[in-house]
Amino acid sequence: MKLILAIDVGGTFTKLGLVSIEGEIISGRLFKTGARQPFNEFKKKLSEEIEQLRTTTTKTYTIQGVGIGAPNANYKTGEMINPPNFSWGQRVPVKKMVQQLLNFPVYMTNDANAAALGELYFGAGKNMKNFVVLTLGTGLGSGIINEGRLIYGQHGMAGELGHVNVFSEGRQCNCGLKGCLETYASVTGIKRTVYELFADSNAESLLRSVSYEDLTGKNISEAANEGDIIALKAFEYTAQILGGKMADTVAHLEPEAFILTGGLSQAGDLFLKPLKKYMEAALFNTYKNKVEIVLSKSTSTEAVLGPAALALVGLKLK
Amino acid sequence: MKLILAIDVGGTFTKLGLVSIEGEIISGRLFKTGARQPFNEFKKKLSEEIEQLRTTTTKTYTIQGVGIGAPNANYKTGEMINPPNFSWGQRVPVKKMVQQLLNFPVYMTNDANAAALGELYFGAGKNMKNFVVLTLGTGLGSGIINEGRLIYGQHGMAGELGHVNVFSEGRQCNCGLKGCLETYASVTGIKRTVYELFADSNAESLLRSVSYEDLTGKNISEAANEGDIIALKAFEYTAQILGGKMADTVAHLEPEAFILTGGLSQAGDLFLKPLKKYMEAALFNTYKNKVEIVLSKSTSTEAVLGPAALALVGLKLK
Repeated sequence: MKLILAIDVGGTFTKLGLVSIEGEIISGRLFKTGARQPFNEFKKKLSEEIEQLRTTTTKTYTIQGVGIGAPNANYKTGEMINPPNFSWGQRVPVKKMVQQLLNFPVYMTNDANAAALGELYFGAGKNMKNFVVLTLGTGLGSGIINEGRLIYGQHGMAGELGHVNVFSEGRQCNCGLKGCLETYASVTGIKRTVYELFADSNAESLLRSVSYEDLTGKNISEAANEGDIIALKAFEYTAQILGGKMADTVAHLEPEAFILTGGLSQAGDLFLKPLKKYMEAALFNTYKNKVEIVLSKSTSTEAVLGPAALALVGLKLK
Repeated sequence: MKLILAIDVGGTFTKLGLVSIEGEIISGRLFKTGARQPFNEFKKKLSEEIEQLRTTTTKTYTIQGVGIGAPNANYKTGEMINPPNFSWGQRVPVKKMVQQLLNFPVYMTNDANAAALGELYFGAGKNMKNFVVLTLGTGLGSGIINEGRLIYGQHGMAGELGHVNVFSEGRQCNCGLKGCLETYASVTGIKRTVYELFADSNAESLLRSVSYEDLTGKNISEAANEGDIIALKAFEYTAQILGGKMADTVAHLEPEAFILTGGLSQAGDLFLKPLKKYMEAALFNTYKNKVEIVLSKSTSTEAVLGPAALALVGLKLK
């Protein structure tokens, strides 16, 4: 049986999987990344975990290649470049390290790009050729599929929609710019909006008793579902900002759909309905009523399908 | 000799050319489009002009195919869709009409997309694979080249960067939306800015004696070159708006360059220097100092090279 070894490096957990060409996860493992420990520690753990993964599977198989998805990873250089939340240096040679561990072809790209390939071959994008994946988590990541291919750009760094500008003098972003989309349209963004609304309005809210640090996207969704005015307004505002920017993305690429994933997307219709409304209102005539917004169906374990798809494309098995 | 019959349909003039595979214009013609006359009149004139073009050439040649660039043209349907400034209907079947006139394979796309292909094969993009062409004329058109291919999108309408949003309650656009980029960053846009500055400021200006209807991009450039404060401010403001939006386009596509064409780009360094400055300031870290802004070198006669390139790609001759 031909398998891909897929690695999804996250800020908190790293997931491993042996994945078939059809996208079946034959076996999987999960371990703490240790993003704040030295990179060598990660290398050691990764090596042990891969060993474990390979021995726990009873089936007979051959590994065809390795796919890696990681934050701020560059497809062309094989490095993670200036990853915030990691203490591994400015240019982290993850691909090279994995090539040294394992004698297989290795492919790496950033997590959101990998997610887009996962959706294309095994997920909500299976029957599509042109779509944009938005990962609405701590930040806002994106991957763009055009005519069934991932858009990499000149240096492998295309698709950073978290950093398009909303307001020129807007919220401070981790990247050094002001007013980036991810400071509004992400779990962190909607938290910031809730606190802005606390400051601007006198409305009572279930969320006023929760500290900024403790507040989660789930808290906000739950409050909104109970009719909490601040929480509802926060979703409305987030949808307005993101919907407008999605219309701009359509003016670039004319995709048939956006596929949403990550914490913020889990709010469901509460978020999707206003998002659709604001996107449609901002769309150029020719594009109206042609672009869908759908939710990714992939579970957290299935995060390895993205890196697996990347390797399959690289190996020309897809 | 193998030639392409190239047709560039403009709001004022239509240009015809017999173009070689190497991009040499063997013979060309120009006639008034008559955008406000019935479409049938255009058909008649086009037919006569093509006849003239074909008989005036003394060389022996065979036409391989026809390429058409036209405003608001859709590659997939072969129609001009809701072209403003034309009285030819909402869906104008230009491709079908030309196919009836001439028994050759016909390819059509919008003028800015065609221009991008022209730059890719015969112009400033000859040695590039990833770039965005911006045509800064009456409006703002765009064509996106990624990995050496034009981005069409799901329904053939990608690349309408004139209609990304600058301010949600901004200037009224012909398309029905408010605050579209082309209401700021085009010849018409900078005219509007000059008049806004007249209203906001008391500064003396050479341009105050010119009526809105008479004011041209050239007037504004000349005034700026003479140190006119209003004209200089108008270029600065236009560059600030466009530079910011170009940074957003980079966050989508990570091109290696923008190629500018059209009236506004003719102001040269006066416009390019602040444009570069504002784009760089708004770029996400990873992209800084990597994206060039260059001017198209193609002349107005060479507008037929875009449609010619389109046909060459369609015929797999490029």
